Amino acid sequence: MALPSIRTEAALARTAANRLAAAPRAAKDTALIAMAQALRQAQTTILQANAADVARAESSGVADSLIDRLRLTPDRVSGMAAGLIDLAGLPDPVGDVVRGWTLANGVDVRQVRVPLGVIGIIYEARPNVTADAAGICLKSGNAALLRGSSSASDSNRAIVDALRAGLMTSGFDPHAVTLLEGGHDLTAAMMAARGLIDVLIPRGGANLIQTVVTGSQVPVIETGTGNCHLFVDADADLDMATTIILNAKTQRPAVCNALETILVHADLAQWTPRLIDTLDAAGVSVHGDPAVRQLDPRAIAVPDDDWDHEALALTVRLAMVADVDEAIEFIRAHTSGHSETIITNDLTASTRFTSLIDAACVLVNASSRFVDGGEFGFGAEIGISTQKLHARGPMGLAEMTCTKYVLVGQGQVR
Amino acid sequence: MALPSIRTEAALARTAANRLAAAPRAAKDTALIAMAQALRQAQTTILQANAADVARAESSGVADSLIDRLRLTPDRVSGMAAGLIDLAGLPDPVGDVVRGWTLANGVDVRQVRVPLGVIGIIYEARPNVTADAAGICLKSGNAALLRGSSSASDSNRAIVDALRAGLMTSGFDPHAVTLLEGGHDLTAAMMAARGLIDVLIPRGGANLIQTVVTGSQVPVIETGTGNCHLFVDADADLDMATTIILNAKTQRPAVCNALETILVHADLAQWTPRLIDTLDAAGVSVHGDPAVRQLDPRAIAVPDDDWDHEALALTVRLAMVADVDEAIEFIRAHTSGHSETIITNDLTASTRFTSLIDAACVLVNASSRFVDGGEFGFGAEIGISTQKLHARGPMGLAEMTCTKYVLVGQGQVR
Repeated sequence: MALPSIRTEAALARTAANRLAAAPRAAKDTALIAMAQALRQAQTTILQANAADVARAESSGVADSLIDRLRLTPDRVSGMAAGLIDLAGLPDPVGDVVRGWTLANGVDVRQVRVPLGVIGIIYEARPNVTADAAGICLKSGNAALLRGSSSASDSNRAIVDALRAGLMTSGFDPHAVTLLEGGHDLTAAMMAARGLIDVLIPRGGANLIQTVVTGSQVPVIETGTGNCHLFVDADADLDMATTIILNAKTQRPAVCNALETILVHADLAQWTPRLIDTLDAAGVSVHGDPAVRQLDPRAIAVPDDDWDHEALALTVRLAMVADVDEAIEFIRAHTSGHSETIITNDLTASTRFTSLIDAACVLVNASSRFVDGGEFGFGAEIGISTQKLHARGPMGLAEMTCTKYVLVGQGQVR
Repeated sequence: MALPSIRTEAALARTAANRLAAAPRAAKDTALIAMAQALRQAQTTILQANAADVARAESSGVADSLIDRLRLTPDRVSGMAAGLIDLAGLPDPVGDVVRGWTLANGVDVRQVRVPLGVIGIIYEARPNVTADAAGICLKSGNAALLRGSSSASDSNRAIVDALRAGLMTSGFDPHAVTLLEGGHDLTAAMMAARGLIDVLIPRGGANLIQTVVTGSQVPVIETGTGNCHLFVDADADLDMATTIILNAKTQRPAVCNALETILVHADLAQWTPRLIDTLDAAGVSVHGDPAVRQLDPRAIAVPDDDWDHEALALTVRLAMVADVDEAIEFIRAHTSGHSETIITNDLTASTRFTSLIDAACVLVNASSRFVDGGEFGFGAEIGISTQKLHARGPMGLAEMTCTKYVLVGQGQVR
């Protein structure tokens, strides 16, 4: 699909977005519940479509881990429906008055949350994202232009058909949710669709995100990459440090808030081999800087001396640093701006760390696995923004909106 | 200056920004006062440098209006200094806790305002912007990379020399304020400097803004273009409508919050020629749609039937519409998303208008000239954002910051 077709789809989405923007919460919640019911009713059709996608992927030799992401089951379809029901239960950010005041001349000023408009979401082969993203956009009053992976095209089509059926039974314009289909030229066309699409959100691997953030003329919200560090300070509670490291590294290694690099205070040289014992026992391979490798030969060199890579696997990098300031310098050189942690009982060090580290989330004595919309209590999450403009950190429903100022006077002029 | 030199300057700016981010308000205010004093002390040098810029512009036949913007006087230098003193008196947004809560497991979460980092500002030949932008960036904890017009290069250099002298006497890194010099390749290099510059803000004409928003790999805040409409509803107070129209159109026609198009309810056909009388008497040329021209032949056709153009002059476009819904449709087709006004005493119409118009500011019975950081009480303004991401509407000090989450626990894991 090239730019002209995007233009048509985006214009229809804009009309739907204009109506959605004015829809009260109750109407949107009714639609979400209808969409959930339609998904459940279409379960057989969705699973058949998914089976075709999976068969195609298997015959072209796609890796098992990708096929697992692609595969839907009755439980996963129920999970998508349950996600929409959950969204119906969340507060609506649209209409919230962020702040308000009255000018000296009597004009009332209110800053009010409003939807962004038409949101383009580019994602990979997980069909559940289709329902998830559509629901989050709808609840926040936005129309969604969804561009999933072509390997999931049959599944996505069946899911969007069901979602649109739910929209129509509840009196909404089906163009509030649109599946865009096409090859790489479609991504290019979406990135060129300035004025047609208000915001692009890429969800997926580092390559996809890099392509979109550097090539898009449409404003982008960058999500995802987490090269997360943890610094164990000299007077850390070492049991606490070990527990948090194990949790942040091993509880779910393939996610962006998992730990990638541990920095250890030089005073803890004796403890470092014990930490490596624990990591080893948990099945984590340890790569180390020269100082670590001298302390414990089990640590092997960091491949290509690349400390910026997000491994998303059961490996961890380990380096010794002289103090909190050297830890801060190290993190500044390598952070992806996601989540950075200090384990310490020293108030000066923790204050220095939280004040000087520039990242979406800075943690003291807690696992970076808490950096998550669900854990934050947002109820829904479209991703974790690692950029500074607009939203930073876990993005819930409020982060899918912008604001406008409404000024009401009685004839005032300057 | 090409990308390699930007890299050097941006790295120095980053170091300065890291220090600035941790500077308390008192230190920043001391620096602003020292910068103001240095500007006053350098007045003779600055005026001499400016005279050279003006002489160069005159000899190359630059228009008088541009030379007026370029020219500095003792009053204008004092004005720049006074602007910095005013900034010192404003609250510091950095460190504000936007919101905070405690997770069920006892982890404290705080969302705290922090500086954006290194801000690139690209602007045209008004040397006072140099001091103004540097001051706003400093107060909000950001380092500024300033790229002014080459026609103001001598003035800008003299101003930045003074500002840096002030920074140094107050113990700050002079690289907190950097003047970048070069031709069009400099703008291109700034737009390519992703990771080095956190945000680019173009301030100037439509061409400059269009170039930057469509070509930049660095996130941009779009400011400026205001194709502002005003709708006179059937039951408007017509004296109020006339007063507000005159104010919005004529008080300062060359600014972005000035009125460009008036939409009149069809029931007010008889009043329309009286409105044109008033506009005529105020020296405003009226262009009209066919319905208006039929009512009053003094109205001439809209050149090229272009209703999107921001004239920034004493001309106005006038069109008849059937009702508030047709006015909303018209505005949706032509708005630049800046400021849109309704004059009405009908609550249903005003609610419909404020709810359905998608713009940074929507006004009821007040002049769009109030859409201004100063009028809003922000004390300082870097521009008026017409984009939806990050900041929308007048941008004060808080809009020059982002946030980070700080999580403090006692060993919690998932």
